[in-house]
Amino acid sequence: MASLQDIGVAAAINILSAFAFLVAFAILRLQPFNDRVYFPKWYLKGIRSSPTHSGALVSKFVNLDFRTYMKFLNWMPAALRMPEPELIDHAGLDSAVYIRIYLLGLKIFIPLTVLAFAVLVPVNWTGNMLENNKDLTFSDIDKLSISNVASGSKRFWAHLIMSYVFSFWTCYVLYKEYKNVASMRLHFLASVNRRPDQFTVLVRNVPPDPDESVSEHVEHFFCVNHPDHYLTHQVVYNANKLAKLVTKKKSLQNRLNYYQNKYERNPTKKPTTKTGFWGLWGTTVDAIDFYTAEIEKMCKEETAERERVISDPKAIMPAAFVSFKSRWGAAVCAQTQQSSNPTVWLTDWASEPRDIYWTNLAIPYVELTIRRLIMAVALFFLTFFFMIPIAFVQSLANIVGIEKVFPFLKSLIEMKVVKSVIQGFLPGIALKIFLILLPTILMTMSKIEGFTSLSSLERRSAGKFHLFILVNVFLGSIITGTAFQQLHNFINQSASEIPKTVGVSIPMKATFFITYIMVDGWAGIAAEILRLVPLIVFHLKNTFLVKTDQDREQAMDPGSLDFASSEPRIQLYFLLGLVYSVVTPILLPFIVVFFGLAYMVFRHQIINVYEQTYESGAAFWPDVHRRLVTGLIISQLLLMGLLSTKGAEQSSPLLIALPVLTIWFHIFCKGRFESAFVKFPLQDAMIKDTLERATEPNLNLKSYLQDAYIHPIFKDEEFERPSAIDEEENNPLVPTKRNSHRSSKYGSEISSETGV
Amino acid sequence: MASLQDIGVAAAINILSAFAFLVAFAILRLQPFNDRVYFPKWYLKGIRSSPTHSGALVSKFVNLDFRTYMKFLNWMPAALRMPEPELIDHAGLDSAVYIRIYLLGLKIFIPLTVLAFAVLVPVNWTGNMLENNKDLTFSDIDKLSISNVASGSKRFWAHLIMSYVFSFWTCYVLYKEYKNVASMRLHFLASVNRRPDQFTVLVRNVPPDPDESVSEHVEHFFCVNHPDHYLTHQVVYNANKLAKLVTKKKSLQNRLNYYQNKYERNPTKKPTTKTGFWGLWGTTVDAIDFYTAEIEKMCKEETAERERVISDPKAIMPAAFVSFKSRWGAAVCAQTQQSSNPTVWLTDWASEPRDIYWTNLAIPYVELTIRRLIMAVALFFLTFFFMIPIAFVQSLANIVGIEKVFPFLKSLIEMKVVKSVIQGFLPGIALKIFLILLPTILMTMSKIEGFTSLSSLERRSAGKFHLFILVNVFLGSIITGTAFQQLHNFINQSASEIPKTVGVSIPMKATFFITYIMVDGWAGIAAEILRLVPLIVFHLKNTFLVKTDQDREQAMDPGSLDFASSEPRIQLYFLLGLVYSVVTPILLPFIVVFFGLAYMVFRHQIINVYEQTYESGAAFWPDVHRRLVTGLIISQLLLMGLLSTKGAEQSSPLLIALPVLTIWFHIFCKGRFESAFVKFPLQDAMIKDTLERATEPNLNLKSYLQDAYIHPIFKDEEFERPSAIDEEENNPLVPTKRNSHRSSKYGSEISSETGV
Repeated sequence: MASLQDIGVAAAINILSAFAFLVAFAILRLQPFNDRVYFPKWYLKGIRSSPTHSGALVSKFVNLDFRTYMKFLNWMPAALRMPEPELIDHAGLDSAVYIRIYLLGLKIFIPLTVLAFAVLVPVNWTGNMLENNKDLTFSDIDKLSISNVASGSKRFWAHLIMSYVFSFWTCYVLYKEYKNVASMRLHFLASVNRRPDQFTVLVRNVPPDPDESVSEHVEHFFCVNHPDHYLTHQVVYNANKLAKLVTKKKSLQNRLNYYQNKYERNPTKKPTTKTGFWGLWGTTVDAIDFYTAEIEKMCKEETAERERVISDPKAIMPAAFVSFKSRWGAAVCAQTQQSSNPTVWLTDWASEPRDIYWTNLAIPYVELTIRRLIMAVALFFLTFFFMIPIAFVQSLANIVGIEKVFPFLKSLIEMKVVKSVIQGFLPGIALKIFLILLPTILMTMSKIEGFTSLSSLERRSAGKFHLFILVNVFLGSIITGTAFQQLHNFINQSASEIPKTVGVSIPMKATFFITYIMVDGWAGIAAEILRLVPLIVFHLKNTFLVKTDQDREQAMDPGSLDFASSEPRIQLYFLLGLVYSVVTPILLPFIVVFFGLAYMVFRHQIINVYEQTYESGAAFWPDVHRRLVTGLIISQLLLMGLLSTKGAEQSSPLLIALPVLTIWFHIFCKGRFESAFVKFPLQDAMIKDTLERATEPNLNLKSYLQDAYIHPIFKDEEFERPSAIDEEENNPLVPTKRNSHRSSKYGSEISSETGV
Repeated sequence: MASLQDIGVAAAINILSAFAFLVAFAILRLQPFNDRVYFPKWYLKGIRSSPTHSGALVSKFVNLDFRTYMKFLNWMPAALRMPEPELIDHAGLDSAVYIRIYLLGLKIFIPLTVLAFAVLVPVNWTGNMLENNKDLTFSDIDKLSISNVASGSKRFWAHLIMSYVFSFWTCYVLYKEYKNVASMRLHFLASVNRRPDQFTVLVRNVPPDPDESVSEHVEHFFCVNHPDHYLTHQVVYNANKLAKLVTKKKSLQNRLNYYQNKYERNPTKKPTTKTGFWGLWGTTVDAIDFYTAEIEKMCKEETAERERVISDPKAIMPAAFVSFKSRWGAAVCAQTQQSSNPTVWLTDWASEPRDIYWTNLAIPYVELTIRRLIMAVALFFLTFFFMIPIAFVQSLANIVGIEKVFPFLKSLIEMKVVKSVIQGFLPGIALKIFLILLPTILMTMSKIEGFTSLSSLERRSAGKFHLFILVNVFLGSIITGTAFQQLHNFINQSASEIPKTVGVSIPMKATFFITYIMVDGWAGIAAEILRLVPLIVFHLKNTFLVKTDQDREQAMDPGSLDFASSEPRIQLYFLLGLVYSVVTPILLPFIVVFFGLAYMVFRHQIINVYEQTYESGAAFWPDVHRRLVTGLIISQLLLMGLLSTKGAEQSSPLLIALPVLTIWFHIFCKGRFESAFVKFPLQDAMIKDTLERATEPNLNLKSYLQDAYIHPIFKDEEFERPSAIDEEENNPLVPTKRNSHRSSKYGSEISSETGV
């Protein structure tokens, strides 16, 4: 086991590497030609304009003012300076609340750290259990942990009392935060300007009618059942094929641009391409002519498809966006049941237009429940049995296997250096690829489950990822062995044994998790701010594709907060902090540093970089709260297991009360606050309506709402893809999203631990 | 273990006793002076009038027409004759759907029985496992059960396939029934005449306002937020004290009647009473004068209290019944959230006025969640630790203890006969008293939980009772030992061991459960129709209290279906049937006979006897369905445990799919049907509104609704107690409710099994 010195060295290395990232960031961000990578948000807001337009040629690209380099950390105070209301205005409530999760970490763990160091560290240090036991090897870390307290000692009362204090403090902070976020959300919803989604309800599963079209049926139904409030509606077209065509056209356009640029720079040689797949084989043709012709063909196809979609009644999905004359009417319709058959005429708040996931709008009820069943089973197998196919691939991907499939590589592989690299590298690569793909796999599963908005898709994926991390990273690190083996053990173990088995291993894994926090947390966050992948991609695009300023605008990839994969990782840190707060308090400062650093970095990022693709009004908070409470309960159960093996069984009844009270706390908070995130109170709707009627009596709401919920493909000539997630799927060769970068980092952690 | 002969003898005995009950019923019900006991429903409907008014003196009391005795079973076809729509009309939807539970039992178990006897009985009989094993003692019953199949035999495929077939059949029938009941409920709600609860919403947790009274505050809030729909409202008075006074007056009036009757019959002697408690000690006074004076005093007190309640603003609770101009408006208000704080202005459908539980209307949110937490913990302890206080009382209530407390009884107790009776009887009496009181205890717990309608109180109590039966009767019979010991074993056993432990004991307990079904089921149902307790009570009251015809009307106790304690017992039979369908099919015919007999008896009772105190529109069905599905899942898990000990582990993966699919089926049904039981669709509301506007354009709704939701105490001069449950609590010496009778019957079963 590692001593304090070892930890110190590891900390020093990681601090240095984090520092190196920060210095690199400080230098790179000051270079004007990187400006669009590090401050894209301001460009998108139109506040900042390209620095390349003015000044000397060199200073267009390189910052020569060396004084600015001296203050290389001054982004930190700058990031903290913007007050929260302005931040909400600037970056949206989602982002502002998201960084509050890190702040919540600080709020919980700073007092916990202080208390734990004031009370538990002295108690553990003077426990002298390990010193009296000469045949045990131990380190300083262990001396600070609960392992140093002799079995059956009265000192465990300190841990017991502190676990109560910690739980109550955590619940108190959670309660305050939930209350705060709920009121922020209501305030945000009340204060935002008129938005189409305030008046609009998404109606799904419109029952088929033999005599009427979907549009007529919707109109008649709502005219009859909401006579005083119904205003207009917008049917949903099945434009999935059209969207594909547009994406394809866009990619062709990119290639045309590339060749045109090439030609402009070197007019002596006409660029050529091959007609086959990806230009790799086929007849050689003139590239510009070829792609121009291809685009023209595609344009025709697109026009034909566009007409088909608009004119063909079969292209209309049994779903509609129904708009009402007032927010009150929409709130009523969204919250009530329309028909005696609860599986048709399903009404729900419409997400804002950007947030809609169009492909999922037309899934019938029975199919939906079957899809969810299948996905639940799939998630179970994914979580517990994902090692099986990977092990299978690994067994195939050995040197003999490769030589069989690709005999021509034999001489290359037989080289000693290459051979050893392959042997060392191959076993891990399948796992790594899996872990890189995991967020995408989970997102695909959520899409199959049929959620209709991007925000809910992200929330569902986050839930799945949280389960995966909990089982495979947290439990997988504590109890070595695959998740499947753990599952098998757990099933064959009694309910009272499981917390004991896990709890006993907890103190021994403290050093591993400290290292994990530093590598994955500290260095990972510092790497986040550097934005290496978007930096490279931007410069590649800038070189090869950009012709006009508008192109450059599009080459910018501000990215966005990736809730689905980063929130579950924060939850892991919360869980670690809560579990170790009583057991090995020395871990807490590392958590605090992580949350502090992450808070600053992400605050900087949401101010300067990220551009959210949608705004859900912090709808994710109930999930965050629930997972935090889950973590708290896990920590309480594990402490109970640990203490019962330490000869402190008499404390079990006292400890059982803790999870019961925590569950009650969760139910209480759920009842108290959750409806703020799923419903819209009529009182607030009425106030906003009355206010609006008074200030704008002549508002033509119908024209305002007419085109709000049209499929984005019909809106602009230039098709904007509905989401950053789609972007990644459709365009796998340009991994612009941060999460692919992140997962790989994260993946290396898992693989190093599971020993693959 | 019992042989088939033993079972046959037991069956004969029970059939005979059931037959004796039926004969006694046939004779008693034909006596005119019992007419009000066996046909009270018709008296209450005003269709039947007292036969004592006409005819000869003797025939007033005794039926001398011997031909009628010959057809002593002709109530059975008569009970089945009334068609269901008429039944709903006559007895209400609650009753009609309640007896459908028995019908559901027949629908599930008749095909199961046929299939099991056609397939499983031959497979088991020819298994020859027991015969080959000479050192085992076994009976014919065991030869018919799964025990007769050798370990690891291929014959288990038959059981596996049949468990799939049985599960699918059960789910199919459940689905059909849920659909049927849901449409019956919607049809019932749509077809019933105008009722106040269709227009009314119960608003709780009205926030305090410093400037306005509750009434003004409610009026203003709904005028603002439901301007087009709000009609009127009715505040809720805290009349609990007044209700107590009225009850007390009524009991004094009863005693006065008793003495007046006594005096009339024997005018020579003025009756006297003593002024102390229950007339047991104190000064002797003239009874009639004394009670007349007392009643007069009580009248004054009551008037004073009545005035105080009406005038004192503190007597107004922060709750109100808000009525709307249309069903649509009420449906909207009931289903939406009013305020941004979801714990104030809670709106919910008002139950019908008879169904309201007035005392619980004013519990604030925080208190409510704390109450529920405490009651959840209490229920846990009640279920698993109820034996501890009983054992304590038992240890006190031995002969030595009695001699210490009551030394004057010593000589009596020392008598040999008395001593043996006490020693044999006392240990069980504490348990029996507990089991008789259990439904009342559970109901009190539900009341503390703060539900606002009698129907929901009954539903909650049923849920608690179901848990108790599941743990203490079902599991307690299979694994001997107290519930606490079972809990301890389960905690210390692995998750995969628990179904095995229970499953292995299942076949061995078949004979016990067959006896249980005959004693508790067959004879219990036959005793139900005899109505022994109400018969005795009616004649007692008739003799001592009745003066006028109106008094006789009140002396009738029609009783009502006691959902809270009888539904969980039906669930036990379902569970037994499902568990044993694959294991010991011989048990199934006994279940079928039970359901058939119960169906007939209860159909007769709801037609002729019971008078429901409220009508909830079969709101209990989702609970029934959920508990049935729970029983199905338990049976599947136990079969899995049993088969895995029989060397058929390879079938486990196939069997695991069953509970997963069953859970999915439950989620599917919940989504598909449950909202019919908790929401009221706007479309249906609109149809009824439109219809009513067309047929009765000049309806004065306001005057119709004005007094609908006034506390019953203010409604009539003669106070009608709000519920039959209250009645029992306030008047413990007159156990008119059937459930006390039932519990004792049931209690003897439990005590005989747990061996106390």
